[in-house]
Amino acid sequence: MLHEADLAPAATAVFTAVLTEGPLSRVALARRLDLSSAAVTKGARPLIELGYLEELAATERTGPGAGRPASPLAVRADREFFVGVKITGDELIGVVCDLRAEIRTSAHRRLPTTDVDQVLTSLGELVDELLDGGYRARTHRLGLAVSGDVDYSTGLVRYSPFLRWRDVRLRERAEKITGLTVTVENDVKALTTAEHWFGEGVGVESFALVTVGAGIGCGLVVGGRLVSGAHGVAGEIGHIGIDANGPDCHCGGRGCVEAIAGADAIVREARRAAGRPELTLQDAVALARAGDAPIGAVFDRAGDAIGAGIAAVANLVGPARIVVSGEGLSAYDLFEPRIRVSFQRQAFGAASECPLSIRPLSFEQWARGAATVSIKALVAA
Amino acid sequence: MLHEADLAPAATAVFTAVLTEGPLSRVALARRLDLSSAAVTKGARPLIELGYLEELAATERTGPGAGRPASPLAVRADREFFVGVKITGDELIGVVCDLRAEIRTSAHRRLPTTDVDQVLTSLGELVDELLDGGYRARTHRLGLAVSGDVDYSTGLVRYSPFLRWRDVRLRERAEKITGLTVTVENDVKALTTAEHWFGEGVGVESFALVTVGAGIGCGLVVGGRLVSGAHGVAGEIGHIGIDANGPDCHCGGRGCVEAIAGADAIVREARRAAGRPELTLQDAVALARAGDAPIGAVFDRAGDAIGAGIAAVANLVGPARIVVSGEGLSAYDLFEPRIRVSFQRQAFGAASECPLSIRPLSFEQWARGAATVSIKALVAA
Ligand SMILES: [Zn+2]
Ligand SMILES: [Zn+2]
Repeated sequence: MLHEADLAPAATAVFTAVLTEGPLSRVALARRLDLSSAAVTKGARPLIELGYLEELAATERTGPGAGRPASPLAVRADREFFVGVKITGDELIGVVCDLRAEIRTSAHRRLPTTDVDQVLTSLGELVDELLDGGYRARTHRLGLAVSGDVDYSTGLVRYSPFLRWRDVRLRERAEKITGLTVTVENDVKALTTAEHWFGEGVGVESFALVTVGAGIGCGLVVGGRLVSGAHGVAGEIGHIGIDANGPDCHCGGRGCVEAIAGADAIVREARRAAGRPELTLQDAVALARAGDAPIGAVFDRAGDAIGAGIAAVANLVGPARIVVSGEGLSAYDLFEPRIRVSFQRQAFGAASECPLSIRPLSFEQWARGAATVSIKALVAA
Repeated sequence: MLHEADLAPAATAVFTAVLTEGPLSRVALARRLDLSSAAVTKGARPLIELGYLEELAATERTGPGAGRPASPLAVRADREFFVGVKITGDELIGVVCDLRAEIRTSAHRRLPTTDVDQVLTSLGELVDELLDGGYRARTHRLGLAVSGDVDYSTGLVRYSPFLRWRDVRLRERAEKITGLTVTVENDVKALTTAEHWFGEGVGVESFALVTVGAGIGCGLVVGGRLVSGAHGVAGEIGHIGIDANGPDCHCGGRGCVEAIAGADAIVREARRAAGRPELTLQDAVALARAGDAPIGAVFDRAGDAIGAGIAAVANLVGPARIVVSGEGLSAYDLFEPRIRVSFQRQAFGAASECPLSIRPLSFEQWARGAATVSIKALVAA
């Protein structure tokens, strides 16, 4: 079984390229990976034997230099399935994905508490429910995504503020309950991996994913690799200070993007603007959409802050493209125009040419991100 | 001659490792570079034959596993010399460096104008003067460093505001005048290369160099490589907006670090604070050092802005260390405390553990950066 085997570097390179950019002929693979044809053939062989790759019907090549027909290699998407679960403060969202990260089914489960034992019990039930849909025999891996400070290499959740978890050995405990091989990753990094392997990040050297919601996060890919930070911190766009006289932030900084554009900050300012201490985020969104000017100004300031933060990413790192997403962007019609204006004003010179994709994102997509990390763990182990 | 030859990848890897981290034994090189002993020996051979590397006297190895004595490979620093020149708006600063980037001699030349023809004539004279010190026979390369938008691959200066140059084919013209093989690089990137290969950046995966002066710049190394930006812009820490209500910047942004902490901004604010429109930067520095509170506050605000910008770098990219330098830091005693306080406040969590080295920098060091780029071009061609 592949999930118990170590792949040679050439096999990993072939698998990764076919999975993210395929189908590809052996000739195209050799050129792209700077490998000999023999190395490509040797790398592909175990993957074909195990059923992960298949040869498509040969297509006639024409034109100068046409030799024997090329048989492109393609991924057999249903060779293996992967469960992905996003753990939030009040819900588990689970999906089953195929090898190409297409969602095959999904399920949710409310969490009455964030008590670790109870969350793990619910997780076991959710995974059972998902696998009972006919996926059990070909599923060996489970990816979990959690917000906060997560150590991928050990599967330890060091600190997750929304879950109020500290030092939870999540991988170990989830493996015991589910019997699957588990990966644990920060949720923003998981989503970034999904975009990098199967989304707008395919084939670019560098890109950024910015998530807007309760927190404001960012995953960065530079030189084809996810940036993780020498001291364990990277992508903290939410705590860039963009207003020296702005509101204090829970991090100890001042005028952070998150202190202006995070969900809590928006609710606080909307309540103040409306003089209604019971106002919810949904109320604020509805009022702004109905044309309430003071509440609209709160979303404008939030959009300005996000745009300035994104411009900082573009000015410093210069990604090929930036995706802005997250559950907060269910109200993206309220944010988008000011994000773009603020970004354009603060992006330096040609950095303003960086394309921004601004779009909402469902919780299933977060769960798919978790599954993607487990796909990557299989392929690039 | 090496400067006309292409090195095999293994030779480049061996040369780079010995140059930046040597002397190293073949065993240590093989381990570090993940190469076989045979590949290391084969890679080193042409470099030894051409006199770039030499074997030091064997040192007895002791302890368990000690086999035949190891003969470390070392660089012969005086095998080749490199000229580096920093071109500023009013001066050329030139140095001759050896292969290990040690400065052997230096010379300056005032520039009455920034007219391209006249600058090139002065450059030819300066290079002659430097090489006449006994370096001519063993010098084949000249590195030039220019502020602004520079295309290393073509040697084109697209735009240099301080020189008022647009689309100057500097490499081509400098090669014609000097007869040397020329590299042209942005000055901050050149300095970053010097730190990466011969300074505080040796052996770390990621680091940042921030320069403070007329402009505020930043060179970033991530994953061992200089970040250049998919759209040609990266490291523009000077144009991160850190004060939403701050002064307008020449870039079109608002509250940029450079609009608060660049030399022009400091002079402008110091003149306003003192009510003396003729005040120079030197006057402002002298007054602040003598305890003038309003002028001191101008430097404090500048230090705060620089610290917030550096924190943005740490929060987003998480470099292993950050060096803060530049001609502006001749007054670094006035900046340093507030840079550190502001950085600590705005750095997120463990990002505040990133060590900051804050130190002044002479123009000779910029010229050495230019020479370093030409050393790198020789080694990693
Ligand atoms: Zn903060
Ligand atoms: Zn600016």
